[in-house]
Amino acid sequence: MNQEHVQQLEAAIQAVAQRKVSNFYFVACGGSLANVTPAQYILDREIEIPSAAYSSNEFIHRSPKALGPSSVVITCSHSGNTPETVAATAFAREKGALTICLTNLVDSPLWEAAEFKLHYNYAPYGEALRGEETSMAILYRLVFGILQTLYPNEKYANAISSIENGLHGVYERNKALTLDAAKAFGRNYKREKLIYTMASGINYSVAYSFAICLLQEMQWIHSSAIHSGEYFHGPFEITDFDVPFIVIKGLGETRPLDDRAYDFCVKYSDKTILIDAETFDLEGISPDVRSYFTNLVAGVVLRQYAQHLSEETGHALSVRRYMWKMEY
Amino acid sequence: MNQEHVQQLEAAIQAVAQRKVSNFYFVACGGSLANVTPAQYILDREIEIPSAAYSSNEFIHRSPKALGPSSVVITCSHSGNTPETVAATAFAREKGALTICLTNLVDSPLWEAAEFKLHYNYAPYGEALRGEETSMAILYRLVFGILQTLYPNEKYANAISSIENGLHGVYERNKALTLDAAKAFGRNYKREKLIYTMASGINYSVAYSFAICLLQEMQWIHSSAIHSGEYFHGPFEITDFDVPFIVIKGLGETRPLDDRAYDFCVKYSDKTILIDAETFDLEGISPDVRSYFTNLVAGVVLRQYAQHLSEETGHALSVRRYMWKMEY
Repeated sequence: MNQEHVQQLEAAIQAVAQRKVSNFYFVACGGSLANVTPAQYILDREIEIPSAAYSSNEFIHRSPKALGPSSVVITCSHSGNTPETVAATAFAREKGALTICLTNLVDSPLWEAAEFKLHYNYAPYGEALRGEETSMAILYRLVFGILQTLYPNEKYANAISSIENGLHGVYERNKALTLDAAKAFGRNYKREKLIYTMASGINYSVAYSFAICLLQEMQWIHSSAIHSGEYFHGPFEITDFDVPFIVIKGLGETRPLDDRAYDFCVKYSDKTILIDAETFDLEGISPDVRSYFTNLVAGVVLRQYAQHLSEETGHALSVRRYMWKMEY
Repeated sequence: MNQEHVQQLEAAIQAVAQRKVSNFYFVACGGSLANVTPAQYILDREIEIPSAAYSSNEFIHRSPKALGPSSVVITCSHSGNTPETVAATAFAREKGALTICLTNLVDSPLWEAAEFKLHYNYAPYGEALRGEETSMAILYRLVFGILQTLYPNEKYANAISSIENGLHGVYERNKALTLDAAKAFGRNYKREKLIYTMASGINYSVAYSFAICLLQEMQWIHSSAIHSGEYFHGPFEITDFDVPFIVIKGLGETRPLDDRAYDFCVKYSDKTILIDAETFDLEGISPDVRSYFTNLVAGVVLRQYAQHLSEETGHALSVRRYMWKMEY
């Protein structure tokens, strides 16, 4: 991790530590919202201070009454230009909240709007990119850094060293491990018009981003992210032999929900695709925090699935019909 | 409202008032989760005490660290037999939380699990049912009753009297007003294999329940509830002339999100169906709380849409292939 990132993180973490915090808000849109939501899950499990995640415009218009000087608002936009997220950051800052942004673009409108600014690196397919410099790594460094500062703990130290020393290798090894599966997915599912995704707990955000960004946005394939626990209370009735589902099974606490959903789904759909964190190579991630890292690995694995689907459909992941092409 | 309901509500409200509450949790599955979520929205806007909504099994397995004796946990299951919700109620009670359940079935396992118990009435299509005795009316009486007890206020008194005196007539009149539109919806959309729903704020829960209960569960039609603000960050790329969307426009604070999504959607999809709260007859609901009641009316209106869709598809709303027919 370079010095610039270390200094930015340290400044943000110290600012949080010096404030009497009554709540955390994670605010972003689309894929960036999916990216920040796992941090809310981690805080929910680890501390008693409440936290919530909102889509940026919902946050502004809902205007939660608890937003104020004792709030920490963490926002994220890759381009740094997402108008709703820039506005949400300015809105939170006006209310006196401590604002921290994550973005790929230094000096962007988001960068200017937030009091504390965290830059992350990015390469579209991650080839030349160090895993510990991506948005998720910076976010996790922030969250576990805050936890470690407020409640020093071996587990949090382990999480931080896992990001620093383990994450990059884990990404590379699991991409290699799942390359054949990704190619088979592309070949076998290239004619599908609809693919559901399913997960729970910290992995739900991956099901959501795969549904809305990779399938709907980048492949024009219909989708919906179904929560593994909600599946049995409505959605499971559309399960049939020819309806495709991608089921992500996590590790640890919410895995029983995913097991149950998968067991039912695979019985009635011949097109059930399993992404199972138990098959991931997580060497380098400390065992006591592995359940918090499965979503990062599932995200990288599924990105490779989408890449090979795209090669088979002939529809490049970069093609859009509306986004960036018009006013909306 | 009958005396039994009044006494049950009074006991629950007084119990909340006598406790130092640090957080509220709303916990249920599927349609019942959709039903309780609007209460979380109302609390988010009205008070600084944090609140959150979870699917029952997610709640148990996630096990939020803030859950404890200063928590109020409100659970709901129509049958009173939903195993995850019964377990979530018992789990919360073991942690010392104040538990309040809503159910149609007195003496059900859920009724036994919760410390405070609220019964509601139900008729499948609402014909002979008084609007002020339904699950939503009882939930709103509870929430506005808590608010009124903690922070006495004319607005909360108006909300309570709107439930008592206005809701039933509003339901009846808006069903009559939208009957022709419901029949046209059934005729025109009976061959669709997929229908998206879209809303924001307090109405998102209606988009969600229509997608997972009415369309997926009861009609085997593919669906996904898209948040109006999230639409532009992925999902809008699947919009096309032949892709159906039901867009719910609320009143008040989050309506600008719905306006923007509708304006885009209707431009590119020839199958955009609008449910607009501005066209509802809300006489009898106090103007200062109308934005909190649009979801109730949209739910009743859309139930009638589903009924007429069902008549045209020949697929009765009561037909299931898995639910209640096997172990899962």
